[in-house]
Amino acid sequence: NPKANIGGFGGLVPFGDSYLVAGTDGVGTKLKLAFDLDKHDTVGIDLVAMSVNDIITLGAKPLFFLDYYATGHLDVDTAEKVIKGIVDGCNDSDCILLGGETAEMPGFYQKGEYDLAGFAVGAVKKDKVIDGKSIKAGDVVLGLASSGVHSNGFSLVRKVLEVSNTSLHAPCPWDKTKSMGEALITPTVIYVRKVLELHEKVGLKGVVHITGGGMPENIPRVIPKGLGVNVKDGSWKVPELFKWVQATGKVPIDDMRRTFNMGVGLIMVVDPSKVAEVQKIAPDAFLLGEVVPGNGVKFV
Amino acid sequence: NPKANIGGFGGLVPFGDSYLVAGTDGVGTKLKLAFDLDKHDTVGIDLVAMSVNDIITLGAKPLFFLDYYATGHLDVDTAEKVIKGIVDGCNDSDCILLGGETAEMPGFYQKGEYDLAGFAVGAVKKDKVIDGKSIKAGDVVLGLASSGVHSNGFSLVRKVLEVSNTSLHAPCPWDKTKSMGEALITPTVIYVRKVLELHEKVGLKGVVHITGGGMPENIPRVIPKGLGVNVKDGSWKVPELFKWVQATGKVPIDDMRRTFNMGVGLIMVVDPSKVAEVQKIAPDAFLLGEVVPGNGVKFV
Repeated sequence: NPKANIGGFGGLVPFGDSYLVAGTDGVGTKLKLAFDLDKHDTVGIDLVAMSVNDIITLGAKPLFFLDYYATGHLDVDTAEKVIKGIVDGCNDSDCILLGGETAEMPGFYQKGEYDLAGFAVGAVKKDKVIDGKSIKAGDVVLGLASSGVHSNGFSLVRKVLEVSNTSLHAPCPWDKTKSMGEALITPTVIYVRKVLELHEKVGLKGVVHITGGGMPENIPRVIPKGLGVNVKDGSWKVPELFKWVQATGKVPIDDMRRTFNMGVGLIMVVDPSKVAEVQKIAPDAFLLGEVVPGNGVKFV
Repeated sequence: NPKANIGGFGGLVPFGDSYLVAGTDGVGTKLKLAFDLDKHDTVGIDLVAMSVNDIITLGAKPLFFLDYYATGHLDVDTAEKVIKGIVDGCNDSDCILLGGETAEMPGFYQKGEYDLAGFAVGAVKKDKVIDGKSIKAGDVVLGLASSGVHSNGFSLVRKVLEVSNTSLHAPCPWDKTKSMGEALITPTVIYVRKVLELHEKVGLKGVVHITGGGMPENIPRVIPKGLGVNVKDGSWKVPELFKWVQATGKVPIDDMRRTFNMGVGLIMVVDPSKVAEVQKIAPDAFLLGEVVPGNGVKFV
């Protein structure tokens, strides 16, 4: 039962001519936002997204998902909304919600609060696994936009809201048509269909899910030693939300980049000859940078 | 991607000539006991046990396990002890600890507390799956002993301790050599090796993991409609712990049976002709009862 030693995001286990790939994650302190807004119908999408976006980095198709929902006293109405989000997330990922556990644990959680853990399993044929090994200097790095903060960095967001005395119900300074809370709780994008289609039709050398640690800490998880990535500043539009957090919290740009996705939710490394083909299938994939000799991520 | 509609415990997904089987569970309020005793090195065994004992009911061999560990502020020493237990549980289950997520969520958990969720995935050849369909009246029900309360019924245990003003540090009335707390925190038995060996060498028609709901609620999850099980009272030794809870808390016997495993952690249904063979491999498997026409579980 050897564990395959590839892949920066999901764990792999050989099974026949395939690898089974598994990922687990929670939603973190984004849940506090759901509690504060009393809005529970989209955190399930975040939950699914965090795990399935990890396993597709290996080229694996999500097969099934299980959830763990823990609370002090089960509120059926809240639970139904949470599960609805999980079902939506599974539908968007073309995977089965195979099961789950609802744990009622008096004394563990504050009234009205809960925690969530998600678990996704996928599979990829061994000869189709994305292991990053073929990445070389000169390869092109493409980005796919995030929908906002996704599910990482909420502790910092909350701190900035607090010190600036900004209400979740206040209109966004950059868009008066929605509230701060609405902007922040926007669910994580699920990249499953797009990434799997691109891998099947074009072939991807590396895929990175931008989670906690941002581009600087996540990109090196799939780039071979001796290579780095130059990310071209200005090659994508940093969402106003991040600019507001940065300015309002006086957050140094390095900290911003190591905490948030900055508008880039997922990146793909492809051979330069494949860029046109990728952008034909996914016109929203933008040129973000390139693989260079060296190491780490530089913003140039 | 159809979900196979068999199995009372784990979820099944067809994959080639196999089914993938997945289970998820937590440890529930047994964790409070770990907090009170400041003993964290065995709840990981419970965590693994709860999921792997579910998936072996289908004849599936556990392949890998992932854990979710959530706390307000990470205490590395405590986390290491918890993970040690998880590693022990995976070793006993011959499965890989493939990954996990440690979530630090300020404000979610009280100081020194944490929650755990576990996910196990196994596989079984389609023609070897234990689906209960061949069970018929006259089949023999064999039991395997539990090690105590396992991971279900702790809310009731805590209530009885509270109303009787019994300290976790007091010696057990039935065994002065150990404390109440030690007796209660005894980890859940992992039945993986025994059950898989018996299924491979002898063939099992049905397997039931006795969890919340006890025998009356778990046995019907694998027995076909139109059949029930007569459990012969006195055919196994009810551990003194349960007798103490029952007497001290004045808990009606029906409530005891629907809350606790009562000393029977797992049951197996076999053809009468196979009993001797089973008991040769597993001399500790005891005759617990038989399958009869009817429905539900009767204690006779």
